[in-house]
Amino acid sequence: MAIDSRFYASLGALTLESAAHLSGAAFSGDPALAITGIAAADTAKAGQLAFIDGDGTGQASLSAELDVVVVSEGARARLPDGVSAIVSSLPRYTHSLIASSLFRLRETGPSSGGSISSSAAVHPSAIISPGAVIGPGAAIGEGTTVRPNAVIGPGVQIGRHCVIGANASVHCALLGDHVTLLAGARIGEAGFGVMPGPQGLEDAPHFGRVILQDRVTVGANACIDRGVFADTVIGERTKIDNLCQIAHNVVLGRSVIVAAFGGISGSVRVGDGSMLGGRVGIADHVTVGEGVSLAASAGLFRDVASGETWGGTPAKPIRQWMREVAWLNKQTAAKKRD
Amino acid sequence: MAIDSRFYASLGALTLESAAHLSGAAFSGDPALAITGIAAADTAKAGQLAFIDGDGTGQASLSAELDVVVVSEGARARLPDGVSAIVSSLPRYTHSLIASSLFRLRETGPSSGGSISSSAAVHPSAIISPGAVIGPGAAIGEGTTVRPNAVIGPGVQIGRHCVIGANASVHCALLGDHVTLLAGARIGEAGFGVMPGPQGLEDAPHFGRVILQDRVTVGANACIDRGVFADTVIGERTKIDNLCQIAHNVVLGRSVIVAAFGGISGSVRVGDGSMLGGRVGIADHVTVGEGVSLAASAGLFRDVASGETWGGTPAKPIRQWMREVAWLNKQTAAKKRD
Amino acid sequence: MAIDSRFYASLGALTLESAAHLSGAAFSGDPALAITGIAAADTAKAGQLAFIDGDGTGQASLSAELDVVVVSEGARARLPDGVSAIVSSLPRYTHSLIASSLFRLRETGPSSGGSISSSAAVHPSAIISPGAVIGPGAAIGEGTTVRPNAVIGPGVQIGRHCVIGANASVHCALLGDHVTLLAGARIGEAGFGVMPGPQGLEDAPHFGRVILQDRVTVGANACIDRGVFADTVIGERTKIDNLCQIAHNVVLGRSVIVAAFGGISGSVRVGDGSMLGGRVGIADHVTVGEGVSLAASAGLFRDVASGETWGGTPAKPIRQWMREVAWLNKQTAAKKRD
Repeated sequence: MAIDSRFYASLGALTLESAAHLSGAAFSGDPALAITGIAAADTAKAGQLAFIDGDGTGQASLSAELDVVVVSEGARARLPDGVSAIVSSLPRYTHSLIASSLFRLRETGPSSGGSISSSAAVHPSAIISPGAVIGPGAAIGEGTTVRPNAVIGPGVQIGRHCVIGANASVHCALLGDHVTLLAGARIGEAGFGVMPGPQGLEDAPHFGRVILQDRVTVGANACIDRGVFADTVIGERTKIDNLCQIAHNVVLGRSVIVAAFGGISGSVRVGDGSMLGGRVGIADHVTVGEGVSLAASAGLFRDVASGETWGGTPAKPIRQWMREVAWLNKQTAAKKRD
Repeated sequence: MAIDSRFYASLGALTLESAAHLSGAAFSGDPALAITGIAAADTAKAGQLAFIDGDGTGQASLSAELDVVVVSEGARARLPDGVSAIVSSLPRYTHSLIASSLFRLRETGPSSGGSISSSAAVHPSAIISPGAVIGPGAAIGEGTTVRPNAVIGPGVQIGRHCVIGANASVHCALLGDHVTLLAGARIGEAGFGVMPGPQGLEDAPHFGRVILQDRVTVGANACIDRGVFADTVIGERTKIDNLCQIAHNVVLGRSVIVAAFGGISGSVRVGDGSMLGGRVGIADHVTVGEGVSLAASAGLFRDVASGETWGGTPAKPIRQWMREVAWLNKQTAAKKRD
Repeated sequence: MAIDSRFYASLGALTLESAAHLSGAAFSGDPALAITGIAAADTAKAGQLAFIDGDGTGQASLSAELDVVVVSEGARARLPDGVSAIVSSLPRYTHSLIASSLFRLRETGPSSGGSISSSAAVHPSAIISPGAVIGPGAAIGEGTTVRPNAVIGPGVQIGRHCVIGANASVHCALLGDHVTLLAGARIGEAGFGVMPGPQGLEDAPHFGRVILQDRVTVGANACIDRGVFADTVIGERTKIDNLCQIAHNVVLGRSVIVAAFGGISGSVRVGDGSMLGGRVGIADHVTVGEGVSLAASAGLFRDVASGETWGGTPAKPIRQWMREVAWLNKQTAAKKRD
């Protein structure tokens, strides 16, 4: 998808040659090919630079429109004909270098600009409390309350009749109507993407957004990170308790319930109406169906089909877990009498 | 108990007829009966509207003074004689609709009011740091320090020699003397009460408070939610570590220790002097006695008597847990040699 | 080590006699001995008052330079010749009383001072966003951005090209270059040190610092507490995810990865390049080697040698854990068919 210019300023296109030059990398293809955007390799459109990690065997699929990619020498042979390549031993790192020459995260800027940016669009009926900061280009809808010392970042769009709690912060995000963020909620921070660079670990930059659909509620001090190139999406009426962590690129369906300390790793999908008990953790890229129940403290490492109930760590169907708990108890309680 | 007018503005009483009309519900009883307040069914006094969930079989007891209730058609027969009823297929939702016509959460209001409300009572010796916001009707006692960018909500009462950490927020709460909140602590947000409504999940409104007794300490980014109709109470000298979650209506005794990531679900009781290790979770409505120890990582789903030590998930007496851990290890280590 | 005067104002030295008098305690030694500082007993230098807990049997070692200590009557015999003693049945509490007469935590002070203290040193190229508060004596380096409503405490030193997230707070800390704190991160709060006092539980005061070396990243709403007398240190390029808790006196090496909800208890050491999965907990005083992997949800109570991979709660070598999980599953699945 295209990078949202409300959150990331475009610094202009690069040619394939100039992009390769930026990172000191070799390339193959038309030197004048225009790189206008960035994307993941499975969704890239023409002109959007993607990357393929490692030897490429972990790359699920490539977009049919992909025409330029950062790739290792070893994975280059896997590219379809006609795809231009920038060759790097650290493809993701090289991609991030080029990406930061194409786009720059917008900042609220120095305090001389005042607490409510002159370019923000605040509905006359909205209440902006003392100490709240509204960044440039942000929009606050009818009847919405922004409580004291909350921060609304540049370009953030907030719908009608929302409540943004005290000291909460929202960046790179679109909120529907009747969305409630309790105090200290953190929406739209960069996700946790650690990658190797030439000198050691580096943070992978994030260029996506957070979408909170209508009537979503996010608890106090809970965190929802923005996507890497795509969006983190929380479906209508989904309710998230205090101190939960929703990582980049997660998609939660409608009316999902996530109790306190719920931790949902990157790119997880959870279907409509599923219920996660307290302190449930889900490993990255796991898919959970609709109407699934996960018992409190479950640590889930595998996909779960719709309608099932799982528990334990590693999580398994709840009856199996309960059998194990009961059997183990019986074996050792009996041993005591031996 | 009565709703505290420092935190919730009364919008005036309703008659039984007008309350039922608001929600489009049928009713039985004197149409002119005055509804002046709201409460839980087991503690309601005359004129306080309560609700009974589902078919009423889950309702432990009814207050002897209860005289008006929202109830399903099926549970209506369980009402004592003389109790007026508003009949709804979604009693809790209907109750919340009527409640929000009786009371409105007070807000700090627009920023034109300044950072320190003119109706706040700040002791001359108290230090209000830059960026701190003190809401209307709040009181800050002698020698108390409010650090930068903290938010003290409308009507909040803070005693003497307290420290309110940077970026912390306090709403709907009464704090004793020598209370310390570290940075980012969230006191008095609405609890996590998800209920069905006619269009899907809804947030249950909260009308209670948080009480922090003398010398309570709350760690950085920890959360203590206010009660639904009653109070969440933290007893004298109880010490709560960073990133803990204390849900609505919890009552912790005196000198309780809760280590980091402790999660205490709704309506739990913990007795004086109990110690909860790191990442302990307690399921809702569980009662823990005095002087109980819960080992780090325990997930407790049952009541524990005073003086006991439990561990594991699901938690059990510590010796049984240790036996299970050792036995399982022995069985599988032995298997390796088979 | 010496107490850092940028964070703690010295209130002047005490004589042994006056220190003992402050706390109503007996003492032995030269009444005029000057107490100029405080320290832990294993690192104290001459003139630095330390304490020994309980009967002294838990005290690992004493600094050769130690010359004055608070100690119980029972542990007094364990003191080397020539060490002066203040005798108390609550040595740590008595020590904290005297310590608070020697040093006082600096505060930003009343809001009349403005949001950016006149004694702060802000590089002209640094961007201080609206609502950010910069305390007295703080320094903000070249190219650093402090986002809206962040709080930089008195004396805090922040290097070049750092980003301090919205609503984050930093106290008693030194940050290198290219350090990133996401929104709501809490750096340098007092750790969780609960000690008995004459009337019940008391908070142990903290006089140390937090050191974040170059290119450290700290996630949203994560917490890193300052040390008691020494420093909490996070090594170069170490990456900490959202909602993690790093306790007092912890030392993490370089390029350590800590995923969300990681909880590292007091005085833990983790070697370079170790990786902690989501929701890993480590008990206090545990030492983890270099290049160690801890699986998601592990609860670690023992030291782990370099290069090992552990999982489970209590954590054990990963193969043993996986054997246990598989064996238990097999036993109970088989039972189903009996």
